[in-house]
Amino acid sequence: MAYRLVIHGGAGNINPSMMSKEEEALYHNGLKDALNSGYTILKEGGTSLDAVVAAITSMEDNPIFNAGRGAVFTKKGVNEMDAAIMDGKNLAAGAIAGVRNIKNPIKLAKEVMLYSGHVFLSGAGAGEFALSRGIEMASDEYFFNKTRYEQWLDIRDSDFYQLDHKEDNLKGPVKNNDHKFGTVGAVAIDNLGNLAAGTSTGGMTNKRFGRIGDSPVIGAGTYANNNSCAISCTGHGEYFLRAVVAHDISCLIEYKGLSLKEACDFVVKDKLVKMGGEGGLIAIDNNGNFEFCFNSAGMYRGMIDENGELIAYYGTTI
Amino acid sequence: MAYRLVIHGGAGNINPSMMSKEEEALYHNGLKDALNSGYTILKEGGTSLDAVVAAITSMEDNPIFNAGRGAVFTKKGVNEMDAAIMDGKNLAAGAIAGVRNIKNPIKLAKEVMLYSGHVFLSGAGAGEFALSRGIEMASDEYFFNKTRYEQWLDIRDSDFYQLDHKEDNLKGPVKNNDHKFGTVGAVAIDNLGNLAAGTSTGGMTNKRFGRIGDSPVIGAGTYANNNSCAISCTGHGEYFLRAVVAHDISCLIEYKGLSLKEACDFVVKDKLVKMGGEGGLIAIDNNGNFEFCFNSAGMYRGMIDENGELIAYYGTTI
Repeated sequence: MAYRLVIHGGAGNINPSMMSKEEEALYHNGLKDALNSGYTILKEGGTSLDAVVAAITSMEDNPIFNAGRGAVFTKKGVNEMDAAIMDGKNLAAGAIAGVRNIKNPIKLAKEVMLYSGHVFLSGAGAGEFALSRGIEMASDEYFFNKTRYEQWLDIRDSDFYQLDHKEDNLKGPVKNNDHKFGTVGAVAIDNLGNLAAGTSTGGMTNKRFGRIGDSPVIGAGTYANNNSCAISCTGHGEYFLRAVVAHDISCLIEYKGLSLKEACDFVVKDKLVKMGGEGGLIAIDNNGNFEFCFNSAGMYRGMIDENGELIAYYGTTI
Repeated sequence: MAYRLVIHGGAGNINPSMMSKEEEALYHNGLKDALNSGYTILKEGGTSLDAVVAAITSMEDNPIFNAGRGAVFTKKGVNEMDAAIMDGKNLAAGAIAGVRNIKNPIKLAKEVMLYSGHVFLSGAGAGEFALSRGIEMASDEYFFNKTRYEQWLDIRDSDFYQLDHKEDNLKGPVKNNDHKFGTVGAVAIDNLGNLAAGTSTGGMTNKRFGRIGDSPVIGAGTYANNNSCAISCTGHGEYFLRAVVAHDISCLIEYKGLSLKEACDFVVKDKLVKMGGEGGLIAIDNNGNFEFCFNSAGMYRGMIDENGELIAYYGTTI
């Protein structure tokens, strides 16, 4: 089977005209580094699951993405992160919500899948599990990022929250258009034809009330099933939760016989648009076909195949 | 449209031979009270959503069920509750995980749906939202229950956890057969043909690490969609999360054309059994057909229709 890895670094109002050449290069290199991390695994015969973890770990370690080190600040001025991973071979899954001081939330999600006897852990309890398993922790300083912090200072006394970037995206708790969505994710198929998907996020700047988005919810933001496809989403999570987006695409393929492209387009460009849900996703099916699909202006995204051919885009067409 | 309300009070190793006549009567009356609470709403032309809230509130107030007042104790000796609600008319949804001292978690889930701008809130943050909305709180004494407390004392120093009852069901964190699953839920169709679903639970005795089960996860334990059906699950939540059970049944109906019964039987008695996932669910479709479906020995369950005809069962056949 020809292996392949597809990643995203968030979707939203991403427009090349808004970015300096330096910013463009930062994102381009960040995506390339993540693709190469996962490719190294696949090339050596590793699993799609490990490739997904490697690619996401690379983006979590890179402060330009809203996940891991670059996670945004909550209403209380702390970083709370969510992540999930799923193995399409056996439908094993692990997820965490609202964890703090975990260096790589995607690694903790995998640990939950393999060793907790559970699927979904949250908050301080998930942190206790991480400690019990020797998962690498990081100090508040590690997560501190001046840009993210200033984004938060600007709105901390308001009821507004925002997703990833600053430009014209301060919105109230219901209306929520025209901004970028910071989340990273990866989907892959390995040389045995096994699928895997993973997603990791810092959520929304100034989020509160222990809000959980779609990223760590199996079926909504993350799903993998060898019968159909692997999906990782990014966008306005509330809509993705209500539409059970990732599992819906899987079911449209498995039960209705749609192609990967037909299923992604129907859910992202028809269903979600009608609901008002902005964002996008990456997808790969059990034949190795892949899709980038989004209804927002742009999405940070990339793909690498078994020949090492790599593409990395961010705007609508580039 | 002929309205109808269907409820469950948990599934598992429920066997009439294990119960005294007094216990039987307690459960029978608990189910009848919940059905009548919801029926009163539907009879007066109320919505399926309000009927679901009324039925679940009745069970949350009744200490025999593992939800609200009767919630079991976690590893730390406290009660942490999860709940979710979904409106099939517009796919609006609200859910909470790991909340404490909330008298009726299902009412908080509805408040999240209507007023938070979010779908899924967790932990202390969800409690802050409850306070900000004037949701009724209750003291630890209100939730104290000698039986539940003794169940917890028996196992608190172990790594075991259990679901609802004491008989021969102390199991480790992976193998987990042969016990009862405490969760309550309701699904309904109203005279406008709108569907709704809700679920509420105290989770597993001695649970830890902030474990979240399927109950509050839209698509897994709770789902409603006027295009297909409304579902509320009860069982070993980890399997229901991985199988995205409630949404899977909806998709089998909507995309594959299965009947409600065919879809429920396939997911509960084939897919879940092959995965090793024990439990059951209640379901109602947009024609008013309903199903009780479980692969465990029994499930507390009941139904009331527009004629006020009421049934309430607990073992396999009664």
